[in-house]
Formats: sequence, C-alpha cells, structure tokens
Amino acid sequence: MSGRKAQENFMRTAVSVEEATHIVMDRVRLMDTEELCITQSIGRYLAVEIIASQPVPHFRRAGMDGYAVIAADTSSATIRNPITLNVVDNIPAGTTSSMTIRPGECARIMTGAVVPDGADAVIKYEMTEESAYGTDEQETCCVKGMVIPGENVSPIGIEIGSGELVLQAGVRIGPAEIALLAMFGIATVQVYQQPRVAILATGAELLDVHEPLQPGRIRNSNAYMVTAAVMDFGGIPVMLGRISDDVEKAKAIVMDAFAVYDVVVTIGGVSVGDHDIIYDLTKDWDGDLKFNKVLMRPGSPTTYGLWNDKPLFALSGNPAACYVGCRLFLRPALRGMMGAKLVPEPRMLATLSTAYLKSDRSTRFIRGVFSSEKGSLVATPIGYDMSSVTVSLRDANCLICLPGSPKGYEAGELVEVIPL
Amino acid sequence: MSGRKAQENFMRTAVSVEEATHIVMDRVRLMDTEELCITQSIGRYLAVEIIASQPVPHFRRAGMDGYAVIAADTSSATIRNPITLNVVDNIPAGTTSSMTIRPGECARIMTGAVVPDGADAVIKYEMTEESAYGTDEQETCCVKGMVIPGENVSPIGIEIGSGELVLQAGVRIGPAEIALLAMFGIATVQVYQQPRVAILATGAELLDVHEPLQPGRIRNSNAYMVTAAVMDFGGIPVMLGRISDDVEKAKAIVMDAFAVYDVVVTIGGVSVGDHDIIYDLTKDWDGDLKFNKVLMRPGSPTTYGLWNDKPLFALSGNPAACYVGCRLFLRPALRGMMGAKLVPEPRMLATLSTAYLKSDRSTRFIRGVFSSEKGSLVATPIGYDMSSVTVSLRDANCLICLPGSPKGYEAGELVEVIPL
Repeated sequence: MSGRKAQENFMRTAVSVEEATHIVMDRVRLMDTEELCITQSIGRYLAVEIIASQPVPHFRRAGMDGYAVIAADTSSATIRNPITLNVVDNIPAGTTSSMTIRPGECARIMTGAVVPDGADAVIKYEMTEESAYGTDEQETCCVKGMVIPGENVSPIGIEIGSGELVLQAGVRIGPAEIALLAMFGIATVQVYQQPRVAILATGAELLDVHEPLQPGRIRNSNAYMVTAAVMDFGGIPVMLGRISDDVEKAKAIVMDAFAVYDVVVTIGGVSVGDHDIIYDLTKDWDGDLKFNKVLMRPGSPTTYGLWNDKPLFALSGNPAACYVGCRLFLRPALRGMMGAKLVPEPRMLATLSTAYLKSDRSTRFIRGVFSSEKGSLVATPIGYDMSSVTVSLRDANCLICLPGSPKGYEAGELVEVIPL
Repeated sequence: MSGRKAQENFMRTAVSVEEATHIVMDRVRLMDTEELCITQSIGRYLAVEIIASQPVPHFRRAGMDGYAVIAADTSSATIRNPITLNVVDNIPAGTTSSMTIRPGECARIMTGAVVPDGADAVIKYEMTEESAYGTDEQETCCVKGMVIPGENVSPIGIEIGSGELVLQAGVRIGPAEIALLAMFGIATVQVYQQPRVAILATGAELLDVHEPLQPGRIRNSNAYMVTAAVMDFGGIPVMLGRISDDVEKAKAIVMDAFAVYDVVVTIGGVSVGDHDIIYDLTKDWDGDLKFNKVLMRPGSPTTYGLWNDKPLFALSGNPAACYVGCRLFLRPALRGMMGAKLVPEPRMLATLSTAYLKSDRSTRFIRGVFSSEKGSLVATPIGYDMSSVTVSLRDANCLICLPGSPKGYEAGELVEVIPL
C-alpha cells in the first residue's frame, strides 16, 4: 500500500514556479472591507481611491517667515540701497488679513499664512531689517534685496488640484498616505480586512515548545515561523496545534478550520512518506486541488488547493522549504486578499558573487545575503543550504532565485533576488 | 523683540547631520525589558543572547523517506544488479527503533526519524523497490543503487552544536528567530519594551481632521504622519493634540508629556517666526538642548534635547522636513531604545539617474525612487521637492542624500540612498 502511494506520489504533475504563482494569484479573492479610524488603518491597503475634495493649498500660502510685498516694489532694492515699506498688518499662520497691500506697503507674515490681497511675493526675514518706529509711529521694514512675482508664495492648488487623484486604491497606508488622508479631512477609511490564517502542523514527532525533548522528537518550530511570517505579511495568524496522522481526523480538523478562518496553512505531511497525509487528504476531499508539485527546491511537494474558494497552502515540513513556500505563495496571496495593488512584487536583479555550479531541472531558491556595493547589488549564497536547516534563514536577507540549468551559475551572472 | 528673537535664531550653531546623529545615538537609553510569550515578541529586539542548550539535531536524523542501511551493503547495487536487504523495522518520525541494523538488514525510515544504530546511511525510496513478502514472510527491500556512508543522515549537532551562539542580543525577532527560539524550547523571551512616543503639534492654523476647512487654516496632517512613522519604527505613538502658542503653557504640556511618555515629539514651531515657540521653550527649561540647527535641507531647524534623559525631538512643521527628521533621527533613536543592534543602518549607494545641479552648503535629502536595473541600484529624484509638499513623499521610496557641494551632482555619480 505504501508502495502504491509512493508511486502515485512520484507521478504528481509538476508545475513551474511561475505557473504555481499564477494559479495562486488567479484565485485570490478580496477580503470584505471595513471602515477604520485612519490611525488604525496604518499598514493596511486602501479599498477606495481618494480624490481631492479641495485644492492644496486652498489659499495662497506663504512659504517663508518674512514680509508679504508687491515684488515690483523691491526691484531696485540692494543691501547698499535698501528700500523701506510701511508694515500695514501682521499675519500669523491660521489668520487672514482684511488688508489689501498697496504699493509701498507690506505685511509681516509667517510661513503657512495666507498671502494678503495685493501682495504677490514674500521676502524672507533674512533679507529685511525691522526699522525703529518712524516719526508717525508707522512701523516700517527695510528691504535689502529683490524678489520676483510669486517668490515664496505657493499658488492655490500647486500641490494637488481639486478633483485630482490623491491615493489609488490598493496603496499601503503609511506615513505619507495617512498625512494625505488627514489633510483632506478623512477621519475614517475603507480598507480590506486582514485574513485570519489557521496554522496546523502535521507530524507525530512534534513536541510543543513547552515540552522537554524526547529521543527522536523535535519541537514544533515551523508553526512559529509561519506565525511570524503571516504577521510580517499582514495577516492574523492563529496556531491551531498539531493534526493527527489519521487522514479522516486530519480532514475533519482542516474542514473545521475552513469554517472559521480565511486561509488554512498546514505544515509537513506533503512528501512521499507513509505518514505524509496531505496527499491522501487532498485527493479525496470536497475541495479543488490545484497543484501538489512545483519545479522548485526546496519545497517541491508544496501543495495548494481551494475549499469553498478559501485557499489551502500545504507547506513542506522542512524549515527552509516551509519558509520558501510562505514567501513565494502565501505572501502574495495574503497581500492580494488585503487589496495590495502590486503582487507579487517584481524581483530585483543582483550579481552573483560566487559560482553555484549545481545542475538542476528545478528552480532553486537558495538562502543568501544581498547588499549594495558601489551602486551594484551583489548576492552571496550563504552556503549552508539544506532544506532541513533553520539557522541559515537567520543569516539570510534574501532568497537567490536560480532557474533550472544544466550547469548552474557562474560568479558574475545576474540573478533574481527576493528580499526577506 | 521679534527682531532680537530672529537674530538669536540666525545665530544658532549648526551641526552636521553626522554630528547630530552621533549626538542623538550617544544619548539613547535602553528601555526596560519585559518577558513576552514568543508569539508576542515578533518584531521586537532580543534583550539576551540565546545559547544552544542542545545540539541540533539532537539525534542522527534521516534526511529522506527511504531505508536506513549499512552503506557498505549497497556498494555493488545497480539498477541491473540490485541487492536485497531484509527489512527489520519501520521507523516513523517521532519514534526510535530498538533494533541494531546488521549486515544484510535495513529499516524503513521516514524523514526526520532517528537513524537506528548500526545503519550509517539512508537510501531514498526512489532508489528502492519493495518486494513481495519472501517465502519466510520476511519483508525485503530491493536496493537499486549505492549510497555512501553518511548519505542522507544529518549527524548530531551538524546544524548547531551544544553551547553555540544561536541568536545575538539585539536581533529583530522574525520568522527564523522565532523558529530557533521554539526549537530550543524557549516559550517566553526577554525583549525591550516599546517606547511610548507623545506627539504634539504647534500652530494656531491647525484644524483637527474632523473640522471643516477655514480660510488660512489647514488640518493637522503631520501628527498623523509622525504617528504612522512611529508605528513603522516600532514605537507606540500617542497623539496628544495641539500645543498652545503661549510658551509657558506649551512648556507645561511638554513637561507633563515627559512625566508619562518615553519620548516627546513636537511638530512645528522650530523656525524663526514670531510664533515659533520651540526656540524659547528649549532656551529656558530644565532640560538640555543639544542642537537646534542641522546643516541639512529640508529640516535645518530640527531641534533635539533631553529632559531627565528622555529625548525631545522638535521637528519642522513642513511635511517633508518633518518626515526627514523622523527618518534620520527619530527612527534610529527608537530602534536603539528597543535594543536593535545596528542603528543607524548603513546607507546604500546608488547611481544618480539625472543631474541635480543646485549648490548647497547643507546636505540635501531629496525625495526619490530607487530600483535595481540590471543589477545596479539607480536613484531618480522625484523633482517636486519643496519641503512644504506632502504628495511627493507618497511617490518616493527613498531619500537621496546629497552632501553639500558647490556645484551639485551630475547624472551617473554614486550617491547614498535611505530607503523609506
């Protein structure tokens, strides 16, 4: 029986990483939206586009602390031959002046204040000198240089015109985006909900983190790794513990998880071993198995299917393979469900620093370090790259993507890197 | 009076960006630690180093599903001339075998299981064939190729030796780190607390996000920007609203904030205008003003001081200057307080795609887009770069750092970029 299973397993139809990604992204279903206070929306993706309801600035705004003037009045002013203007008003930011500036007049003005009618420029403090009160107690200002019309004045709408697109749907709400929302008086905003991701591990060898080690058993570290990855990707992880090695029981647990959560991730049990139950589970269920073999290393038995439009990601139990599965498939799926507009993101190209001469039909994702050296991106394999190894993930900041090749890759070749 | 103030303001002693950074980082005081469940520690920085309490793996681990064998038994095996071994045990992951493998014997074994005594290699399924039960009902296995000693067996401690450093203090806890913590049975971990950051805005012109626009008044978008930035940097932002233009009242509010929070950020009021109260506030307080002028644009009046060892960051009210101040000074300070080990991070070099020919004594931080093109990092200024402009922050993914230069920068020159 196990022989037949193994044989069936070997006959799985492999898809390329690109096909697999396409299959996953094609089935991404947007989460429902929710309306959040903008401070709670940070890190989410906008569900609506934001159109400017007003121009920015919505008044002629002073760009400097100084004096609002008629530029023509200053045309002959120099340090040696300053000109004197009567100061007719004082305009702090937040107030407006009822005065109209006439030739020979100016108004003291602060950055951000409304430039008064009549004035067409602001001359900064550093180019002026306050004079003592004159004989008629008229305050005056001594101007020691010229300004041109429009200088230090932001015209209405120069930054954003009324009706312009301020934010596209699908952008991540970060510092600039929230500032723009606040600027337009948008206190609450529609964003997509965060997917809730059930995380289940298979394997009789797994111990809980609290349990002492036993011969032949290891602690369930992968579920924690996936938990952190889901949080990094923006989802809400929920660790549901270990699934039984019994297929029917496991199936019941997975179906229960689908009833509650938006995504189910299982870890382990995808290979050809006797106790690798995911193959049996997905062969004979109500769901739709999309692939269970990908032309990649590590993680070739990575399995993906849908149950009632909800995705199942069945990841390898080897730590590195598990993480590669998370990064390649789970991340764009979760971000897509949350409405992010560019998923998966384009990869970067870097120069491979050392040769990697293993031939392979599959695309390899090897752990690496990339950095910029004199303006060039350089990627260096970490070297200790068995899929069972966790510690090299700690030292990596990227996956180096090496498509199948009969001879491998020479130092100096351009390769794609996926930042971690 | 305002003239004297302006004059004093002009006489501020400017420090370079490097000096300012050094001053800020030199005064960073680590937060207290707290013990968290590891799933709550994600994104924090480790306060302790983690030493391996056990080797990994802690037993001779099978790296494949297959059969545990004595390699020497397989030395003559080929597809045409397979050899037959007696299967004496079946070892799923999580169990141990009491058998010792003798010549002519093997044990069926699953990935991750304990390789039994006597065996020194694992031959994978794909190179074997299960035979029908023999005449004496002894299960046998037909081996169609050779393995060498050690093949598909991970020796004890090959990944991590007992007593080795697993995680340095100061690393960010992400997927790999939490997996390693779980692997060593560490369920709770010491991390540094997140700094609580009070955010106060100055300016009579500011409206709350809920309020309708009024002539000459704008909504307080910077406080939201800083809020999002503090969250991005790992701190806990607390918006405390607007401070009065009255210096004594403002000082009382700032001191109240210091009594409760770990960091105080004020926005605006740092320039030379009549209502720019931060200069007066920090000139005559119990705290220690460290700098109030930095040779940079935007954000030259960025001000930093300490009150009872707690930092005050008084940022410019111009949106771009405000954000540059956050990114250059607040970010490394918050990360340093949380125990991150490499702050500020080293900058990357990129090739400037277009000339930027403005001369300047100060270092300019211009908004830009950087991307990798054929393995080279290329940085392109966004162009619309006035410090009053928020919208170009939306479009930027980096700040391009251009140190003061009499002639500016040509296309093709290498420049530093700071990712946003």
